[in-house]
Amino acid sequence: MERDDYLAAIKTRMPEKRYIHTIGVMETAIFLAEKYNENAKSAETAAILHDIAKYADEDWMRQIVIQNGLDHRLIGWGSEILHGPVGAWIAENEFNIINEDILNAIRFHTTGRAGMTKLEKIIYIADMIEPNRKFPGVEELRILANKDIDEALKACICHSIAFLVHTKQQIYPVSIECYNDVIS
Amino acid sequence: MERDDYLAAIKTRMPEKRYIHTIGVMETAIFLAEKYNENAKSAETAAILHDIAKYADEDWMRQIVIQNGLDHRLIGWGSEILHGPVGAWIAENEFNIINEDILNAIRFHTTGRAGMTKLEKIIYIADMIEPNRKFPGVEELRILANKDIDEALKACICHSIAFLVHTKQQIYPVSIECYNDVIS
Repeated sequence: MERDDYLAAIKTRMPEKRYIHTIGVMETAIFLAEKYNENAKSAETAAILHDIAKYADEDWMRQIVIQNGLDHRLIGWGSEILHGPVGAWIAENEFNIINEDILNAIRFHTTGRAGMTKLEKIIYIADMIEPNRKFPGVEELRILANKDIDEALKACICHSIAFLVHTKQQIYPVSIECYNDVIS
Repeated sequence: MERDDYLAAIKTRMPEKRYIHTIGVMETAIFLAEKYNENAKSAETAAILHDIAKYADEDWMRQIVIQNGLDHRLIGWGSEILHGPVGAWIAENEFNIINEDILNAIRFHTTGRAGMTKLEKIIYIADMIEPNRKFPGVEELRILANKDIDEALKACICHSIAFLVHTKQQIYPVSIECYNDVIS
């Protein structure tokens, strides 16, 4: 499938605002891929599909996790954590993506993980800094992403954990594995 | 053993500053125990022994972890994380403490854990707010501890995680289990 086919496929699954966000992630991911010598086509595909499960039914997502033996730690978590791994499952099973790096970039785009590949880092960072994101500190993250992908990843994951604690939201253990990995 | 025996036993194992901190934790823990209807003697014993392994040799602590089958997740962590579980091991094996609640209060005084008992909460909080502690926000934690032990615990663990992220220090997974538990 080509870019326009993927875009048409996701457009019906999300509100306009999320579609605009996805376009922003796609453009940012392609920019970062070209900057850091990653495959831009892979970045494009992963970016377009990264939020494909964002508005899927939570109970359905839990069924997918159980029936397909996805990481058992996902049980008990909500849409915010489920939509990455289930999005990767949709990408594989409905869009026939076989590139494991693209699938992992979708799978871990919200939580990160220890030992991320360059493509995974690009999608994680692009999701946080795409032009429609507006939160205090995003400009510093954009500047860092333009300088050093690993420093940007470190700053992004620290920002994310600090935000979760500040707003008293639960932290998925894989995010802490990612945090402990990137700061070491 | 009585208070003075325990105090004499720990005094030789730590610098003067840590001993003064321990006295502060003891007095705070007894105050909180009386306030929240916990056994003050248990609080006293746990508080006096909580940092008994703080200055133990790191390699020796790792040996203790391995030889005695303590939580395998401790391997690879430093003194800051090891000294609680190893302190509990010393309390049990050298001081013949058999009260599991006292041992757990020592074991989890740095990291916390999901499902803490009242005594564990008291030692965790007392360790953070004892009168010699001086950090921005400690006064708010003291005020909370005087009002509501669970709100105080929540604020203490949030402060602790936020501090670790702010200073880019690794976070032990059990601390996140504690955080996720207390904020839910």
